[in-house]
Amino acid sequence: MSLEKSIRSIGPRLNLETGLIDMTHGSGGKNSYQLVKEIFSDVFGSAHLMDKNNYLKAPVGDLVMTTDSFVVSPLFFPGGDIGSLSMHGTINDLAMCGAQPLYLTISFIIEEGFPLKDLLRISKSLKKTQEDTGIKIQSGDTKVVERGKGDGVFITTTGVGILPPSRQPLSLQAIKPKDVILVNGPLGDHGIAILAHRAHLDFETQIQSDSAALHTLTEQMLTKCSGLRYLQDPTRGGLSGCLNEISYATGLSIELDSKKIPLRTDVRAACELLGIDPLVLANEGKLVAICSADCAEDLLREMKTHSLGQNAAIIGTVVESVESQTPRVTLRTPYGGQKILNWLSGDQLPRIC
Amino acid sequence: MSLEKSIRSIGPRLNLETGLIDMTHGSGGKNSYQLVKEIFSDVFGSAHLMDKNNYLKAPVGDLVMTTDSFVVSPLFFPGGDIGSLSMHGTINDLAMCGAQPLYLTISFIIEEGFPLKDLLRISKSLKKTQEDTGIKIQSGDTKVVERGKGDGVFITTTGVGILPPSRQPLSLQAIKPKDVILVNGPLGDHGIAILAHRAHLDFETQIQSDSAALHTLTEQMLTKCSGLRYLQDPTRGGLSGCLNEISYATGLSIELDSKKIPLRTDVRAACELLGIDPLVLANEGKLVAICSADCAEDLLREMKTHSLGQNAAIIGTVVESVESQTPRVTLRTPYGGQKILNWLSGDQLPRIC
Repeated sequence: MSLEKSIRSIGPRLNLETGLIDMTHGSGGKNSYQLVKEIFSDVFGSAHLMDKNNYLKAPVGDLVMTTDSFVVSPLFFPGGDIGSLSMHGTINDLAMCGAQPLYLTISFIIEEGFPLKDLLRISKSLKKTQEDTGIKIQSGDTKVVERGKGDGVFITTTGVGILPPSRQPLSLQAIKPKDVILVNGPLGDHGIAILAHRAHLDFETQIQSDSAALHTLTEQMLTKCSGLRYLQDPTRGGLSGCLNEISYATGLSIELDSKKIPLRTDVRAACELLGIDPLVLANEGKLVAICSADCAEDLLREMKTHSLGQNAAIIGTVVESVESQTPRVTLRTPYGGQKILNWLSGDQLPRIC
Repeated sequence: MSLEKSIRSIGPRLNLETGLIDMTHGSGGKNSYQLVKEIFSDVFGSAHLMDKNNYLKAPVGDLVMTTDSFVVSPLFFPGGDIGSLSMHGTINDLAMCGAQPLYLTISFIIEEGFPLKDLLRISKSLKKTQEDTGIKIQSGDTKVVERGKGDGVFITTTGVGILPPSRQPLSLQAIKPKDVILVNGPLGDHGIAILAHRAHLDFETQIQSDSAALHTLTEQMLTKCSGLRYLQDPTRGGLSGCLNEISYATGLSIELDSKKIPLRTDVRAACELLGIDPLVLANEGKLVAICSADCAEDLLREMKTHSLGQNAAIIGTVVESVESQTPRVTLRTPYGGQKILNWLSGDQLPRIC
């Protein structure tokens, strides 16, 4: 039976212009079925929910598995939406483990009253992200909660990737003093894009989220640089949170040079205006790489050949902690001073991803 | 550094008696770190969040991957809680594909103000379920949303399993007329347990959810019965929803014998009192098996040897649909009549799982 015919035979079609999610769409009954058929069939691909279409070719190498929930607000923002973000985020989590992403699953928790046309917009964004990244969503789930018990849509994506047999797992334990720290481009774009959109701020140019899938960049880096020790994406908590956690976990300190940290001029201006440190702002298409000193320049050159690494930079080094001090992250300021980059305990910008 | 020392060095310990979740626990900063350390370290097992501890031994055979969000209300109910339920649910989804479950991930969306002691209770339940089922949670995520934008805790679990190389994938296409339909025990327990708890109904005996992991039962069934065509767990939508969807997708009809469908006496009584059809109630430890007629008795005997199949029963058969009719599920009543089991379009009992 064709999909078109299946849908027609099950009841009147959904009104994708003005229709709203109601509790029956989460019942597991006919209406749930219809919702998935009409909104998500392009993403899930299966003609029938109960089709066992989740048998996947087993890869050669160790598996890597990561999961992430997305509660970003607003759902649509300059440079992306919760759909593309949720795929990029999980693809990047796998990539940061040195893995080649293979398969994704997606699960929706939808609030009663959510417009079907917005759900369709998210579904189309997922489809486009599948095409752009080459990573397919294999299976999914939808649940509905009452009005006031959710907030539009929450998405959880989970990914499975493969660590090629010749590749060593990345590990915090590999990080050593004198290692060099790189980023693949300017920081804080996602945080400012969301914040500006929430606050209805008009900057001269619209700042776009940097949301992007980094798996082809990391693959290139891992293939070309044997001295790469560790990768991490500075999402929630920003560069500062990411490096503080690494410092805390390894017992090593980190010294950054503020002049070398790439920032877009408009992001820097927005941060000054708003009194926000760009280094605590979330990024969704950036990575921190830590590599041995002897291969840092090669790695930088390699990164710059990739479209997502054109503005890559060496920003600092790993150092032994001073005996009497707790490990810390310091920033050399443009005026030659040094300040400690603290690990944020509060939340400057909730629901950024 | 020992976990104990890590936690102390990061700040004052959480108050697990009276403390509440706040937005900083979702910041990705120090407080997120502390939350995971103190509440979930037993479940996640890693000393540091950024430790790449999600490298998994690659199995031999095709992979199966499923995901499911749990928004059950209440979070704690007779016979289980959202923690055990979320693990059982995803283990069962894998088992219904004929797969051996290997790895799980878990993601929490927590509402601001949620009591830490309840989160700890869920964490302990997850730990116990890991021990009981032998399936480990490999990685996880936590997000926090503002008060009134969630409802306590939502959990999404995703699982990866393996289809042993000698085993054929299960498929709707394998189902044929004259095939026999079995269930592994009495239906509707989960639905009534949740409903009674929500409505503060006192029955003579407390009805417990049937929430359970079915992977050892399915493994036994798949190993012993080569005529097994298809497995499905009748969760949301109950037996009626499950069989209607199978009928709709295959174009075949299904005839059930109401006398043979196992129901607990107290569940039957509760359903009569409440005017609810037990066949639309959700189950969380039940499966529907469809097998060739010649091996049905053997399969039934095999199921009865397993603790989760002691009350298994043959309940009906698959038949050709009458040419002029749409495929349908019918129930032979105790008085010899026949009624059509409709596919629920509404939702009798929202947020049952």
